Amino acid sequence: MKTKETSAAGTVPEPTIRRMPAYLNHLQLLHKRDEKYVSAPQIARSLNLEATQVTKDLSHTEIVGKTRVGYDIEQLISVLRDFLGFSQAKDAFLAGAGNFGQALMKYKGFKNFGLNIVAAFDSNPAIVGKQIYGVPIHHIDNFRDMAEQMEVAIGIITTPAEIAQSIADLMVGWGIKAIWNFTPTTIRVPEKVIVQNTSIYANLAVIFNKLNKTT
Amino acid sequence: MKTKETSAAGTVPEPTIRRMPAYLNHLQLLHKRDEKYVSAPQIARSLNLEATQVTKDLSHTEIVGKTRVGYDIEQLISVLRDFLGFSQAKDAFLAGAGNFGQALMKYKGFKNFGLNIVAAFDSNPAIVGKQIYGVPIHHIDNFRDMAEQMEVAIGIITTPAEIAQSIADLMVGWGIKAIWNFTPTTIRVPEKVIVQNTSIYANLAVIFNKLNKTT
Repeated sequence: MKTKETSAAGTVPEPTIRRMPAYLNHLQLLHKRDEKYVSAPQIARSLNLEATQVTKDLSHTEIVGKTRVGYDIEQLISVLRDFLGFSQAKDAFLAGAGNFGQALMKYKGFKNFGLNIVAAFDSNPAIVGKQIYGVPIHHIDNFRDMAEQMEVAIGIITTPAEIAQSIADLMVGWGIKAIWNFTPTTIRVPEKVIVQNTSIYANLAVIFNKLNKTT
Repeated sequence: MKTKETSAAGTVPEPTIRRMPAYLNHLQLLHKRDEKYVSAPQIARSLNLEATQVTKDLSHTEIVGKTRVGYDIEQLISVLRDFLGFSQAKDAFLAGAGNFGQALMKYKGFKNFGLNIVAAFDSNPAIVGKQIYGVPIHHIDNFRDMAEQMEVAIGIITTPAEIAQSIADLMVGWGIKAIWNFTPTTIRVPEKVIVQNTSIYANLAVIFNKLNKTT
């Protein structure tokens, strides 16, 4: 087995990267069932993909399946976790500890995937100074101090949409390298900063709109 | 003011629909600040969009801004809520009441947008029969009975990825018209069924991958 250098991961197409967690998730289930090997067509069937797609995606990790037996499941899990960066814990700050922010703080699954929310920020006096699901809530005015004290690369924005841009500016100004934006606002950041948007209301709007068409 | 018939909403491009919740969200904030009118360029500046884009998007609702003063905020909120279907409560079943499912059940924000999780399903004996954040947890084997008793159009899947497809089959078989899939699995459904995917791990994978490139 050989794996590509981290730098080479940069050449992997984004759709492939987006499918990787599904492979990992599936392989972890097979591993729990004590299975040892799995073939690309088997993975493809389980995840509703084409086998050629699976082979191509996994080839980016440079792990090679054995003829007839397929991929060594344990090995592939380890390679995928490294490849995705899930095996290395990464700290994140969360801004906006309202309902949705707290739902993310409650969610234990992130830890398995290497995301560790180390502090949350809000301006609501009812929660500032408290711990929620083990995460300390600081006043947003303390963000600069905290960012100086701790080396945190990831910022999660779950604030009201209207302040998302100013929070993003604050985060970028104080060293955040990647922003995960859960608000419906399109945020602007310098080119070097990574942004991923997860707008759940956009999904909801599409569902409702299409439902209205069918009924 | 005149608004299009619901059926006409079907002709609106999906990117427009996906931006609508951001407009609504922003207008609701302006309304809280007691503002009465807002122009397309003002909305555009607040949400990092082009003014022409805003005008075009909002033209799908057929609400017309007044020269010099812009849109009547209260009116536009009402029109957008109707347009998006947020003003009409829609019931949803949730399958998979684990950590992530519970996070969604905890989240109160959905109710403001018309999504009402009326029941959750799981096979874990530790939670079946209980209420979590006010949502009753049923055994997944009771899904058919519940689906027959209640008219529910939306199914949310927050199960382990491996069973997402069989849960989707069950939902489609028993009358669910729209599936919101939070698992990393690509689910297959008959053409008439609506699917929206929110794969948070795919977002996380992209963030981690890009961070690895920059460090």
